[in-house]
Amino acid sequence: MLLAQLPSTDACDYLVFLNMEILFAFFLKLSQIDHFGFLEDGTFKQRYLLSDKYWQQPGGPILFYTGNEGDITWFCNNTGFMWEIAEELDAMLVFAEHRYYGESLPFGQDSYRDSKHLNYLTSEQALADFAVLIQNLKGTLPGAQHSPVIAVGGSYGGMLSAWFRMKYPHVVVGALASSAPIWQFPGMVPCGDFYKTVTQDFAKSGINCDANIRKSWKAVNNVSSSASGLQWLSEEFSLCAPLKNKNDVLTFKSWLQETWVNLAMVDYPYEANFLQPLPRWPIQVVCKYLSFDSTVSDYQLLQGVAQAAKVYYNYTGSSPCLNTSQTATSSLGYLGWFYQACTEMVMPMCTDGVQDMFEPEEWNFQAFSDECKAMFGIRPRADWAGTVYGGKEISSHSNIIFSNGGLDPWSSGGVTSNISHSLVSIMIPDGAHHLDLRYSNDLDPPSVRAARDLEVKYFREWIKKIKKSQRKTLAPNAKPRHF
Amino acid sequence: MLLAQLPSTDACDYLVFLNMEILFAFFLKLSQIDHFGFLEDGTFKQRYLLSDKYWQQPGGPILFYTGNEGDITWFCNNTGFMWEIAEELDAMLVFAEHRYYGESLPFGQDSYRDSKHLNYLTSEQALADFAVLIQNLKGTLPGAQHSPVIAVGGSYGGMLSAWFRMKYPHVVVGALASSAPIWQFPGMVPCGDFYKTVTQDFAKSGINCDANIRKSWKAVNNVSSSASGLQWLSEEFSLCAPLKNKNDVLTFKSWLQETWVNLAMVDYPYEANFLQPLPRWPIQVVCKYLSFDSTVSDYQLLQGVAQAAKVYYNYTGSSPCLNTSQTATSSLGYLGWFYQACTEMVMPMCTDGVQDMFEPEEWNFQAFSDECKAMFGIRPRADWAGTVYGGKEISSHSNIIFSNGGLDPWSSGGVTSNISHSLVSIMIPDGAHHLDLRYSNDLDPPSVRAARDLEVKYFREWIKKIKKSQRKTLAPNAKPRHF
Repeated sequence: MLLAQLPSTDACDYLVFLNMEILFAFFLKLSQIDHFGFLEDGTFKQRYLLSDKYWQQPGGPILFYTGNEGDITWFCNNTGFMWEIAEELDAMLVFAEHRYYGESLPFGQDSYRDSKHLNYLTSEQALADFAVLIQNLKGTLPGAQHSPVIAVGGSYGGMLSAWFRMKYPHVVVGALASSAPIWQFPGMVPCGDFYKTVTQDFAKSGINCDANIRKSWKAVNNVSSSASGLQWLSEEFSLCAPLKNKNDVLTFKSWLQETWVNLAMVDYPYEANFLQPLPRWPIQVVCKYLSFDSTVSDYQLLQGVAQAAKVYYNYTGSSPCLNTSQTATSSLGYLGWFYQACTEMVMPMCTDGVQDMFEPEEWNFQAFSDECKAMFGIRPRADWAGTVYGGKEISSHSNIIFSNGGLDPWSSGGVTSNISHSLVSIMIPDGAHHLDLRYSNDLDPPSVRAARDLEVKYFREWIKKIKKSQRKTLAPNAKPRHF
Repeated sequence: MLLAQLPSTDACDYLVFLNMEILFAFFLKLSQIDHFGFLEDGTFKQRYLLSDKYWQQPGGPILFYTGNEGDITWFCNNTGFMWEIAEELDAMLVFAEHRYYGESLPFGQDSYRDSKHLNYLTSEQALADFAVLIQNLKGTLPGAQHSPVIAVGGSYGGMLSAWFRMKYPHVVVGALASSAPIWQFPGMVPCGDFYKTVTQDFAKSGINCDANIRKSWKAVNNVSSSASGLQWLSEEFSLCAPLKNKNDVLTFKSWLQETWVNLAMVDYPYEANFLQPLPRWPIQVVCKYLSFDSTVSDYQLLQGVAQAAKVYYNYTGSSPCLNTSQTATSSLGYLGWFYQACTEMVMPMCTDGVQDMFEPEEWNFQAFSDECKAMFGIRPRADWAGTVYGGKEISSHSNIIFSNGGLDPWSSGGVTSNISHSLVSIMIPDGAHHLDLRYSNDLDPPSVRAARDLEVKYFREWIKKIKKSQRKTLAPNAKPRHF
């Protein structure tokens, strides 16, 4: 079932040249390390994947995935939507890797060495890479010169595709920003909404599910207060490294919290493998172990929590132990994303333990900033993303679809109602994190099918409109327009 | 007559506080040295001038001059248009100085020391400065929170105001880009158009005027081939430093060429002092000395050229000698602009001696690049401006007025026909370089009066539209919009 409709199950990992027809290939393009300064004049090899199997040239459209914080082949394999609509749109597919992730490392193995080497890891630089790459493709691929380009992305990649249309509307005619929390920045949305959505997902997936998770933190505190309790917890959760002290317990609780968040993100209606291999509607499966009533003891409760966690970490039964330093696929670039969060991507989050099922924790910018300073030697600029990308004042832009899933905690920072007739919101009530970008599946809810249809309808409209204006411009006897 | 309608002839140079009402003042704001990277976390003091004499708060509009390559007080004094319309628009005036010019030096006296210190001199950084400054003003000035901001600029400042609206439409509701050659970049317009316009200005300002300048270059070559000729030339032109060798002659010819270009830029219909103090219609005055017929000798011709040059350099009679290393006011930052030309602002120019009156010279990017490398240790990126600002593909933007003067050579790289109903061109056939931005004058041609009226009409429309949408948003019982 999994990825059944993929042209090849790992199409994105292979290079397949068939005579002159490129079925699928990856390429490297030299890109400036610094687009915004001239002192650093070095270049690096940016990776991108390209398929022109269904592309009708000249002029067929290009669907351009604006890569996010991870290996581009992984995003490529998890963006089946683009593969599925390529034929009907006669489209070329391009998946561009984001600098500092995957194999697109500006300074090779030194890229993460220090803040000096990390200095070019910004969204603005990434957008400039994409713009230069597209202009290069259009200038060098025969038949691509007048191809309309549509940006597609999910999550941070969706933010990038929205911002790409905002900042480079001459390069892309429109953008599909799936599950893109472009408003998860200071002062734009309440910091508690994210965890509220996570909690709601658990509340509706099983009896007492959120309540038991809410109780579990105190149970962990109680049990971990003794050495034997620490040992019991370590064994019950099959931890690779046993818990030894209070710090380990803090890490353990953070890891658990992130586990629930990740489950909310990937609460898909069918068996899937995005962050981890998981059953269909995984939160429902998790909640089966968390339906205790109020008489349960701390130990019983935590036994349930351990079984629940193993749904996430050991669904396939192949994990000998659970590692509290990792919560998802290694295809994601954690360190890079943490650097980005410590610079531009300042996303306030908070919990109160009442409207959500987590231990109360206020958003503390200063503490966060200090952590960043200690880790990278730099401090975040809380207001910059709002200043450069416009925050809530984006109504003058056009041709952006913001799709969001009702189950997805990131929808709290997303655009969930229409801003104008061409800045539209598509809500997928039964959808988790960018479900619409995934391969279609027999178990897909009607809402995501409808969303995909609407998305393609918008794509066609954008393409039609630009083709019409191109015909006017390119017509040999076209007269100048007067207004 | 000159600057007669200025509130005070040097209003922009003074600080005038009247009780709580600021008539005019200059301020300094701390701005990030590097908006696009986090390693360099220093700030610098950016200067801006502000007048709220006519501002109606709360909510009155802000006219924001996007400073260009020079001292902001000089631009302020040469942008009387803003002063004149402030009252009728109830507007606050802000003139923001461009980093690396005037007193806004990121590294103080070291700002120009080397390419390391110059690394933050880019248009993108300047636009970010403007955006941060406006958000800061709106956040701190009582009554300014909902003030619509309109960007105004001339020449490079006009390019900045157009780009500012393109890149930060959430910060400015519209832009007046006067004499802004946003298309004077590689591949966008023919490289010879600029000098053709210069030539046409001279051709229509006096009999034989362009023909005699065209002949003058050979005359200079002939006369300068002997030591006595060099001496004669130096004396005839009252040069501060006598010509000694072939290199000096090359410099001398470049200086003359730039003199004619500058005259074309400031061919205003009244006595004015922009680049130099000059009579009304200065090219007509210049051409009186260049009306020889074909029998004229080299020496006679060059006597005429010398007198013509002195119209430009010594109209007031106060220059003891002419300096071939300077062609205009020292308020302009030549070195900074040369750095910008050597990085982003690559503007191809060429002459053929047939359609223009200059010695033929092709556009040679490589030679230019080598010169930049030798001077600053960096090389220009010919395509970057087009990639980042869209070149000719700007139709998806809105609310930009591109005004151009028919006499202005920079109109060759400007937007001289409408692109859409909200990207409009205003042509001023009798206008030189951003004549519309200057104080009104009894000798103004009807075309510039009409241009100014139309500009204000657009300003009012933009303000009205944004006020209307603000009323909707701010109304306490406003219902969410659905589409």
